[in-house]
Amino acid sequence: MTPSWSCSTWNGTPEVDADTFEALFQRVRNWGRWGEDDQRGTLNLLDDAARAAAALVVRSGRTVSLSHDLDTLAGPDNGRPALHYMTQQCDVALGEPRVNTDFIGVDFHGKSVTHVDALCHCSFRGRLYNGIDSSHSVDSTGGSVGTVEQMRDGVVGRGVLVDLPRARGAEWVEPGAGVGPDELVETLAAQGTARLSGDIVLVRTGHRRRREVLGAWDPSHHSAGLAPESMEWLHASDAALLGGDGDSDSRPSSVDGVDSPIHALALAAMGLPLIDNMNLEDLAQACSAEGRWDFLFVMAPLRVPGGTGSPVNPLAVL
Amino acid sequence: MTPSWSCSTWNGTPEVDADTFEALFQRVRNWGRWGEDDQRGTLNLLDDAARAAAALVVRSGRTVSLSHDLDTLAGPDNGRPALHYMTQQCDVALGEPRVNTDFIGVDFHGKSVTHVDALCHCSFRGRLYNGIDSSHSVDSTGGSVGTVEQMRDGVVGRGVLVDLPRARGAEWVEPGAGVGPDELVETLAAQGTARLSGDIVLVRTGHRRRREVLGAWDPSHHSAGLAPESMEWLHASDAALLGGDGDSDSRPSSVDGVDSPIHALALAAMGLPLIDNMNLEDLAQACSAEGRWDFLFVMAPLRVPGGTGSPVNPLAVL
Amino acid sequence: MTPSWSCSTWNGTPEVDADTFEALFQRVRNWGRWGEDDQRGTLNLLDDAARAAAALVVRSGRTVSLSHDLDTLAGPDNGRPALHYMTQQCDVALGEPRVNTDFIGVDFHGKSVTHVDALCHCSFRGRLYNGIDSSHSVDSTGGSVGTVEQMRDGVVGRGVLVDLPRARGAEWVEPGAGVGPDELVETLAAQGTARLSGDIVLVRTGHRRRREVLGAWDPSHHSAGLAPESMEWLHASDAALLGGDGDSDSRPSSVDGVDSPIHALALAAMGLPLIDNMNLEDLAQACSAEGRWDFLFVMAPLRVPGGTGSPVNPLAVL
Amino acid sequence: MTPSWSCSTWNGTPEVDADTFEALFQRVRNWGRWGEDDQRGTLNLLDDAARAAAALVVRSGRTVSLSHDLDTLAGPDNGRPALHYMTQQCDVALGEPRVNTDFIGVDFHGKSVTHVDALCHCSFRGRLYNGIDSSHSVDSTGGSVGTVEQMRDGVVGRGVLVDLPRARGAEWVEPGAGVGPDELVETLAAQGTARLSGDIVLVRTGHRRRREVLGAWDPSHHSAGLAPESMEWLHASDAALLGGDGDSDSRPSSVDGVDSPIHALALAAMGLPLIDNMNLEDLAQACSAEGRWDFLFVMAPLRVPGGTGSPVNPLAVL
Repeated sequence: MTPSWSCSTWNGTPEVDADTFEALFQRVRNWGRWGEDDQRGTLNLLDDAARAAAALVVRSGRTVSLSHDLDTLAGPDNGRPALHYMTQQCDVALGEPRVNTDFIGVDFHGKSVTHVDALCHCSFRGRLYNGIDSSHSVDSTGGSVGTVEQMRDGVVGRGVLVDLPRARGAEWVEPGAGVGPDELVETLAAQGTARLSGDIVLVRTGHRRRREVLGAWDPSHHSAGLAPESMEWLHASDAALLGGDGDSDSRPSSVDGVDSPIHALALAAMGLPLIDNMNLEDLAQACSAEGRWDFLFVMAPLRVPGGTGSPVNPLAVL
Repeated sequence: MTPSWSCSTWNGTPEVDADTFEALFQRVRNWGRWGEDDQRGTLNLLDDAARAAAALVVRSGRTVSLSHDLDTLAGPDNGRPALHYMTQQCDVALGEPRVNTDFIGVDFHGKSVTHVDALCHCSFRGRLYNGIDSSHSVDSTGGSVGTVEQMRDGVVGRGVLVDLPRARGAEWVEPGAGVGPDELVETLAAQGTARLSGDIVLVRTGHRRRREVLGAWDPSHHSAGLAPESMEWLHASDAALLGGDGDSDSRPSSVDGVDSPIHALALAAMGLPLIDNMNLEDLAQACSAEGRWDFLFVMAPLRVPGGTGSPVNPLAVL
Repeated sequence: MTPSWSCSTWNGTPEVDADTFEALFQRVRNWGRWGEDDQRGTLNLLDDAARAAAALVVRSGRTVSLSHDLDTLAGPDNGRPALHYMTQQCDVALGEPRVNTDFIGVDFHGKSVTHVDALCHCSFRGRLYNGIDSSHSVDSTGGSVGTVEQMRDGVVGRGVLVDLPRARGAEWVEPGAGVGPDELVETLAAQGTARLSGDIVLVRTGHRRRREVLGAWDPSHHSAGLAPESMEWLHASDAALLGGDGDSDSRPSSVDGVDSPIHALALAAMGLPLIDNMNLEDLAQACSAEGRWDFLFVMAPLRVPGGTGSPVNPLAVL
Repeated sequence: MTPSWSCSTWNGTPEVDADTFEALFQRVRNWGRWGEDDQRGTLNLLDDAARAAAALVVRSGRTVSLSHDLDTLAGPDNGRPALHYMTQQCDVALGEPRVNTDFIGVDFHGKSVTHVDALCHCSFRGRLYNGIDSSHSVDSTGGSVGTVEQMRDGVVGRGVLVDLPRARGAEWVEPGAGVGPDELVETLAAQGTARLSGDIVLVRTGHRRRREVLGAWDPSHHSAGLAPESMEWLHASDAALLGGDGDSDSRPSSVDGVDSPIHALALAAMGLPLIDNMNLEDLAQACSAEGRWDFLFVMAPLRVPGGTGSPVNPLAVL
């Protein structure tokens, strides 16, 4: 269940060639595993029994938001700021009571929006998860396969936080070499956190703490995240979902010709949904305060027909 | 805990005069109950202990979405249809993997959008919950008091479904006289469902079943909902949140000069957030199948700074 | 210049077969006429000399808007209502002076939005104007060929109004058989209006008057417009642009397998931009009052990079 | 008609005190000039005769766009980037022809959007143009007085360009002291351009050329524009409209306690609409090439009910 890995060292130039990546892609891919027509991927690991078990993880009842605020101000990591407009205020007299109402708009795959990626978000070499032809499955009106509708009843399970900076004794993981499976395993061990099949795995790099201290930057070319080999561990240990405080990818990419190897492996190969740009700072504090790093995880994406994801406010209930 | 009420009969003209309503408003209002500066209202009833207890309600692990799909088609009850646009598709070649991304926009207090009303959504005679002056608390950039930010860590608690059509042996409650507290109490009794302090109370009128059979209509002037007196029962029994498959108000209003008495009483007097336009059809079936009408309820509004609410996909975990 | 045509009679079922339409398409098509790389189509007919001449048409100096209001209310012909939100009001105190600002959003090819169709709006059998492959010229981020950017410096020329209801002595042209070239020619003759090469031709059917009297309807399946043969006359007489108070197409279509034959012929074959859903009521009154049906026409589309058109407020200066 | 002025020198701290500004405000204000209920302000100077005369200004027939492209990329002067989304592409097979359609959204008073300010955009000390109480004239649903609807039939007149950098022999006017009336008058004289009552006056500072060379910056605190005294000349010489390549205001403001004195004087005192963020580079070249700096000016704002302005693409026809 916990193979040994040698964590890659990274020097800013790709060190994984196309063939090696292709082989890794083949090893972790779940195409056909849950049937030829499956659109849920690793969410299949979360059944009623898993959810009932996850509810038993709750002890203190403390809840923590794992989302950032919608951000309407443009910035280096917010090139497509959210819209929030009042559509009517109590200044309009139409009887009693009076109401304040508003509109929100969000291009939700933006770099600072907490959002879930449905499986149809990402194709690799023309194929979505389960080998589906991307060009026939998503058109200008939305997706027909592997959309966020697969999560309409929510994602409920046991969540575990892998708090990398805490284990390192650092404020954050500096962008550079991707974090390998050894470190993930060791961090969990240091926390005393077991990893179970069907877990929702949240990996904290301290992205937001770094942003708070150093100011916002464009993470497209410079972000802390996972090494591709880590996906093999998530595959072997049957994670149901992966979330990060960045977008889980380490940048620049260590893979020649593949910009976002974690996205390719997770979404296209494994059928593993991702949550990007989570707020894991509050959770890290809560976990540390309670001396435990597992919790009931609940996420309820908006029901967007044809959607490739959704903005979300995932919750941890400790 | 369960006082006796005589349910009002209704003939389409207001039967509650302004003074009677004002007296009711005074009886149920919680201004000052949790402090002069309180902005959370009845959410104060949901503490860590309540959440930990609610998690123990889970038995089967079945999850049910309590939301409808975002609806991009205009209709009689959808005058401000949601926007869903692809912002980029895999047709744009920018390397591998390729991505599909999208934008959603929603004027979320619309009549067919499943959404939560924060306390600042609604003022009565110029006052929000806790007596706050509406005109100084909400401006064109959003609210500063009683916003949806108060729910940023989610609303987690024990939910109970009051399935009115099931108890009546009808497909739905026909719009007309508001449903009084007696019927709510009796329905719960028939279901064998206890009501506890801090419950999230969801009242099913069969609104959506009616819509499915008869077609969509404009509920602004014709909707099944609660009689104002029912709020006194919710007040006495310390409900933490009220949801409905309409907007909880019965229309036309039975109160002279007050268009939406339930909104006025819940949001402005009691500080009780509302969830409007829920999908309670799937939940009704699940509850009936499992022979129980209580469950773990989880709702995680988007974190909209200054927001008067949020579109939501609340979940029931049975 | 003014060939004789027999106007088709119409009985609601297609009467033009695919081969006949294909032959018509070939006869009117301007592919290659202004070079293999041309993206402007009939706008090539409007050069500096034509614009200078058009300015001389002005006599009274009266101006008339040819647009409707942006409509934020959903309706049978407004399924994608425009958005108009205040983004800041003077209620926010940030110094002096104070400002009121707003946001507009519009899915501008909607059925009641006055808008111009750029040539890339419409493909026929996979081809845009000038034989360009549609699938390689428009992707999810917009068009690269034949976009509204071709009109960035405005469309300025001599406009002529063909006021069909006036000539018929009717309030409007009832949806049914498309209006043939004979009637267009005869109407202009009755008005005493010459037709010159490079004209902007506006055809009034009284659509909006009908809507005012009978109420809004969905014009997708029921609209007054032109018979396909009329495009041969517009081709022969070198119109630079065609506008209508509907979308110029008569519906249901008279052409087997072609939903919008005028769109196919104008945009894809001729390279003739269209203006849809114009307000021609005020213009009709002004023309009648002044006893002339030509004027300086000015339209300045918004500069939308990659846009397939733009909402517009075209002007007539009489 | 052309009084003599001494141009102010500027050192970055306010040099005009509140009383002096108030006196200037009084001198230029047109309240009551066209009636107590007037909402059109200086647009009253543009009547049919003025428009007919303006058409005669056309000589070459060359047209020039005075707008920038809608900009969907965030930047220092584009904090609220425009939205442009495809709403349907030819990839969706719904018959023939197939269509590409799109949505645009724009918070149009943004710092890099070419837009017109209607009179209700701006209040000074609680008053709009003509003394109207701002708080009763604009609410969360839009304006009721002095809106862009007043320009629904377009703004057509004689335009004159005041090309400041050309006269100075510089690439641009460096942000700093506001440009005074003397320089405006002298520049026109050097150009040989007469100023007539009812002119649309466009003042080029070279803002965009500076941006091209030095990169974008936030003009909120650093922009070239007019000195407050210049408004007295525009008032005396009866300009109908004022446009600039910035927003006409010089920043930082030279007036104590007034952030945007030109906006206050133009919109609130004079009833003079403004066009902000124009593209005057192409016009400057065209004027220079033709050796004339007057032209037919045409602007047709979108018809936004309740709008405080509109994005526009004004045209010059030379």
